Amino acid sequence: MRYRREELRFNGWGRTDKTFDLKGRDAAVWAFVSEALGMRELPRTPAVPLESIALPPIALDGAVLERLRAITEVKTDAFERAFHAVGKSYYDLVRIRRGELPGAPDAVVYPRTHDEVQAILWECAEHDVAVVPYGGGSSVVGGVEATHGGAKKALVTLDTTRMDALLDLDEVSHTATFQAGIYGPELEDVLKARGYTLGHYPQSFEFSTLGGWIAARGAGQQSNRYGTAAKLLVAARVATPSGEWRTRPFPASAAGPDLNALIAGSEGALGVITEACVKVHEVPESRDFLSFLFRDWESGALAIRRIVQAELPVATLRLSDADETRFFGAFRTVLKPSRIQEAGQKALSLGGFDAPCVLMVGLEGPSAQVGLARRSALVLCTRQGGLFVGRGPGNSWYENRFSMPYLRDPLMDHGLGVDTLETSTEWSNVHTLYAAVQRAIREQLEKEGRRGIVMAHISHSYTDGASLYFTYIFPRDLGDEIGQWRAIKEAASEAISKHGGTISHHHGVGIDHARWLEPEKGPLGLGMIRAAKHEVDPRGILNPGKLLG
Amino acid sequence: MRYRREELRFNGWGRTDKTFDLKGRDAAVWAFVSEALGMRELPRTPAVPLESIALPPIALDGAVLERLRAITEVKTDAFERAFHAVGKSYYDLVRIRRGELPGAPDAVVYPRTHDEVQAILWECAEHDVAVVPYGGGSSVVGGVEATHGGAKKALVTLDTTRMDALLDLDEVSHTATFQAGIYGPELEDVLKARGYTLGHYPQSFEFSTLGGWIAARGAGQQSNRYGTAAKLLVAARVATPSGEWRTRPFPASAAGPDLNALIAGSEGALGVITEACVKVHEVPESRDFLSFLFRDWESGALAIRRIVQAELPVATLRLSDADETRFFGAFRTVLKPSRIQEAGQKALSLGGFDAPCVLMVGLEGPSAQVGLARRSALVLCTRQGGLFVGRGPGNSWYENRFSMPYLRDPLMDHGLGVDTLETSTEWSNVHTLYAAVQRAIREQLEKEGRRGIVMAHISHSYTDGASLYFTYIFPRDLGDEIGQWRAIKEAASEAISKHGGTISHHHGVGIDHARWLEPEKGPLGLGMIRAAKHEVDPRGILNPGKLLG
Repeated sequence: MRYRREELRFNGWGRTDKTFDLKGRDAAVWAFVSEALGMRELPRTPAVPLESIALPPIALDGAVLERLRAITEVKTDAFERAFHAVGKSYYDLVRIRRGELPGAPDAVVYPRTHDEVQAILWECAEHDVAVVPYGGGSSVVGGVEATHGGAKKALVTLDTTRMDALLDLDEVSHTATFQAGIYGPELEDVLKARGYTLGHYPQSFEFSTLGGWIAARGAGQQSNRYGTAAKLLVAARVATPSGEWRTRPFPASAAGPDLNALIAGSEGALGVITEACVKVHEVPESRDFLSFLFRDWESGALAIRRIVQAELPVATLRLSDADETRFFGAFRTVLKPSRIQEAGQKALSLGGFDAPCVLMVGLEGPSAQVGLARRSALVLCTRQGGLFVGRGPGNSWYENRFSMPYLRDPLMDHGLGVDTLETSTEWSNVHTLYAAVQRAIREQLEKEGRRGIVMAHISHSYTDGASLYFTYIFPRDLGDEIGQWRAIKEAASEAISKHGGTISHHHGVGIDHARWLEPEKGPLGLGMIRAAKHEVDPRGILNPGKLLG
Repeated sequence: MRYRREELRFNGWGRTDKTFDLKGRDAAVWAFVSEALGMRELPRTPAVPLESIALPPIALDGAVLERLRAITEVKTDAFERAFHAVGKSYYDLVRIRRGELPGAPDAVVYPRTHDEVQAILWECAEHDVAVVPYGGGSSVVGGVEATHGGAKKALVTLDTTRMDALLDLDEVSHTATFQAGIYGPELEDVLKARGYTLGHYPQSFEFSTLGGWIAARGAGQQSNRYGTAAKLLVAARVATPSGEWRTRPFPASAAGPDLNALIAGSEGALGVITEACVKVHEVPESRDFLSFLFRDWESGALAIRRIVQAELPVATLRLSDADETRFFGAFRTVLKPSRIQEAGQKALSLGGFDAPCVLMVGLEGPSAQVGLARRSALVLCTRQGGLFVGRGPGNSWYENRFSMPYLRDPLMDHGLGVDTLETSTEWSNVHTLYAAVQRAIREQLEKEGRRGIVMAHISHSYTDGASLYFTYIFPRDLGDEIGQWRAIKEAASEAISKHGGTISHHHGVGIDHARWLEPEKGPLGLGMIRAAKHEVDPRGILNPGKLLG
C-alpha cells in the first residue's frame, strides 16, 4: 500500500502534508476570486474535525465480524469509518465537512489476495451484509458511498489497496498483470523500473487504483495515445458472490460477446476486480508539448477534429474555452505576477484574440512519430487560425496537473462551491451540447441570483466525437448547500440527457447518475445488465444503489 | 439487394457465373495437387443438383404464413429453402453437395425495415417459431444453419439483404448509418462515391453484410488500420422478441458497461441488427504494399511484433509460414510457369532461404504516415533478416484476394477436402499454439493414413498478440466425410483450447464452436450471456443452437 491511511485526508483531497501552493499571495488570490464572483467578502467555512462527526453505531453482527477477522485485517475505528463513508465529490465534501454523513461502513476490510476477497464475499453473502468495493475512493459520483440499499442490515467496505503486487510482466506480449488495488504512482514506478509505462493518468492518478480505473471505465490525460481504461484492459480476475469470474488474455476474439466490456464500467456492482492484465508500452523515446491560441472555441475544436480524423499519433489534445483560458490565465497571473504576460495579452487583443482559447497538444512516442505529428499538428492548427505560443503553457499544465485538485479544499474553506461534470457526444453535436449544458448551469445560478464562473474544456477526442468537461465555481448557499448542489446537477444532467450527451464520459454512474442511465441504455439494455448482475450477485450485496440504482 | 439470389450458388461460393480461373492449365493443376497429396488420381465428386435434395415438408402453420406474408415478402420454394439451409463451411458444403441437409427453413422472409423485422419477431415469438437471422450467409461455423433447437415446431430464416440503404452519412463526425443487410461491395460503393471508406474487408467481403460482420465480431484484412468489426461499431438498432434495443452513438462513455460489446458477437442470438452506425474514414491518400522474405517463421513473426509494438500506422501485416509460402508459390507457378521465378527461387536457396516465409506489409493513409511507416517497416524487417522482394507478391495477393474462396469448389469436385480454422493468442504463446494446432491436424491426418497439406498464416496482429489462421487440404474419406471432418476439427479445437488460444479470432462460434465456449468464458461468463439472452428472447426463438449451444 503506497499510503498509510493516516497520511491522507478523510474529508478532502490527497495527502495531509500537502496543500495548494498559494505562493504567499493568499490575500491577492482571495481578492481576485471574490471579485470574479461578485462577492464582497468570502466567509470562513472550515470543515468540522473527525471528533465532531457522529457515526452510526456498528450494526455488524459480532460473530460475522470475528469470522471476517479470521479471513483478513478488519478496521472499525472512527477514522477508517469516516474515511470510507463517501468519495471525493463536491457533494461528498459538503456533507463530510459539515459532519453529516449519510452512513458509514460498519467495518473496513483490507484483503491481500483474491482468495481473501472471495472468502469475504461468501461470508457477507451468507449473512446478507452489503459490500462496497473501494480502491482509492476518488469517485466523484457516489461510487463508493456507504449506502446499505434496501434490506441490508450491515455494510462492509472492501478496501483493495493492500493488493498492490505486480504479478507478471510479459515483455514479449507487452502486458502486465497486477493486483488491482495498486495506486497509480506505484504502478508506474514498478513499470518504469523495467522500461515500460501504462500511460493512464486520470486527474485522480495519485490517489486512485488500477481496479478503480477499470471499474469506473475512466480515461487518462493521454488517452489519445494510450486509450481509455476499457481499452487497456486485456483480462481480469473478478471475485463475485457466485464465485470466481475470469476473462482470458486474448488480443482479439470472436468467441461471443467480449465480457471485458462488462467488467469495465461494472462499478463494483458485478464483482470485485482483484487482478488485471493490461497493455503496457515502452517508455516513450520522445515527448513534446505544444500550445496554440485560437480566436474562438469553434476553430480550436475544429483543429482537434482535423488532428484526430487525420489519425495523427498524438497523446493529448486539450482545448480550454475562453472562460477557462481567461480564468486560469488570470489566476496564474495573480499567483505569479508577470509584466511579460500582460504585454503578451495586450498584443493578442490587437490581433483579434480578445477571448482566446488555448489548445495544448501533447506528443509522445518514437521520435519519428513525434516529429511527424508535430509537423502535421502545426499545419492543421495554423490552418484553423491557431497561433503557436510555444511550450510554456503546456509544460506548466503538465507539471501541475496533479496539484489542481488540491485547490478545491481552500475554496471550500472560503464559502465557495466548485463542482465538475462531463459528457461526450458526436462531433456534429459538440457545440449544441456545449451550449445547452453551459446555459443550464448558468441559468440555475442566475435563478439563485448568484454569479458563477462556468468554464469548459475538451480533453478527450476521437474520430467520431469528443468529451466536454465543465467546471463551475460559485458562492455557496450556506443555508441549503445540498439543495443548491442538487439543483445545478439536475439542470445540467437533464441538459446532457436531452441534447444527445452521455451522462458520463469518464466519471462513471455511481449514485449521482443512476437515474439518467435508463434513458441512455433503454429498458432492455438496463435489463440485460441487471440480469447479468443477478447471475453473479443473486442477493444483491455488491455496492447497493450504485450503477443500477 | 446487390445480388438476386439466383445469381448465387446455393451449394458453393459466390456467383454462378464465376469460377476459379485455372487459366486453361487444368491438367497441370490437378497433377500438381494430386502429387502434393500423394494421390494416384483424383476422384470425380460432383455436387448433386437441387432437384436431388430432399427437403423436409413445410411445417409452418398456414395461418402464421399468411400473417408473415401480410408483413413482408415470404419465399418457400426449394431453391430459397436449400440456399438458406446452411452456411458456407466445408462441413456445410460436404452435406449440401451430397444432398443431405440437416434441415431447411420452412419459409424465408425478406423484410425491408426495422419495423417489419420487429413484426416478424413478434409473430414468430407468439407462435413459438424459431428465427434464424441471415445476412450474406457466409458463416463457416454453422452460424446460419436451419436448426430448430429443442421444442420449436417450425423455423423461419430472416434474410436481411433487402435492408440495404444508407440512412445517414455524418461527414462531421465521420460516421455512417446503414441498414444492416447491405453487402460489402454496395456499402463501399456508396461510401466511396462520397469520398469515404469503412475499410472492413473480410475474406467474405463480396458476399457478407454489415450486420453479419458485427454479429460475428469479425475482422477485415486491413484490421491494423481500421480495427475489427467490434471497433468500428458506434451504435446499433436491434429488433428482439422483447422489443427494440438501441445503443447510442457516443464516441466514448463511462455510463456503465458498453452494450455495443454485447451486440458484437451476439450471432443473432440476442436480436436482429437492423441498423448500424459505423466509423468511416476518408479514402486514403496513399497506399503501398511491400513484401519481404524471411528465413523462418519465427523471424517473420518477430518483425510483425516489432512493427505493431512500435505502433506504426500499417494497414495489413500478413505472414505465411513456409508451407503456405511454398504451396501458393508452387500453385502460382503451375498456373503461370515462369523461368524467372524458378531462377529467383534458386538464388534464394543459396542465401539460406531454403524454406522462406513471405510477409506482406500493407500501408494506407495520409502520404506522410505511409512514408513514415514504410521507412520504419523496412528497417524493422531488415533487422530481423527480412529480404525486401518488392511489391509484386503483395499486389498480386491484393488483386486476387476475393478469388481464393472460389478455389474450394473445384477442389471439392475432385475428392479433396479443404478447411480452415483460426485462433489468436498472446505473443509469448504464439509459437507454442502454432505448433500444437499444426501437430493436432497433422497427427489426425496421419492416423487416417492420409497425407495433407497443413499451412498457416498470421493475418491480424496487436501489440499484445496475433491471430493464427490454418488451412488444410487433404484427400477426402469418401466413406465417412463427416466423421473425418469432425475428427480433425475436434483435434484442432482441443489443441486450441488446451494451449491458450481463443476458439475463434474472427469466424465466430455458431454451432461448431459452441462446446468450446464454456471452457473459454467460464460458467459465470456464459451464465451472464444466457441471462442477457433471456431478457431479450425469453422464449428462445432466436437462432437456436448457435453461440450458447
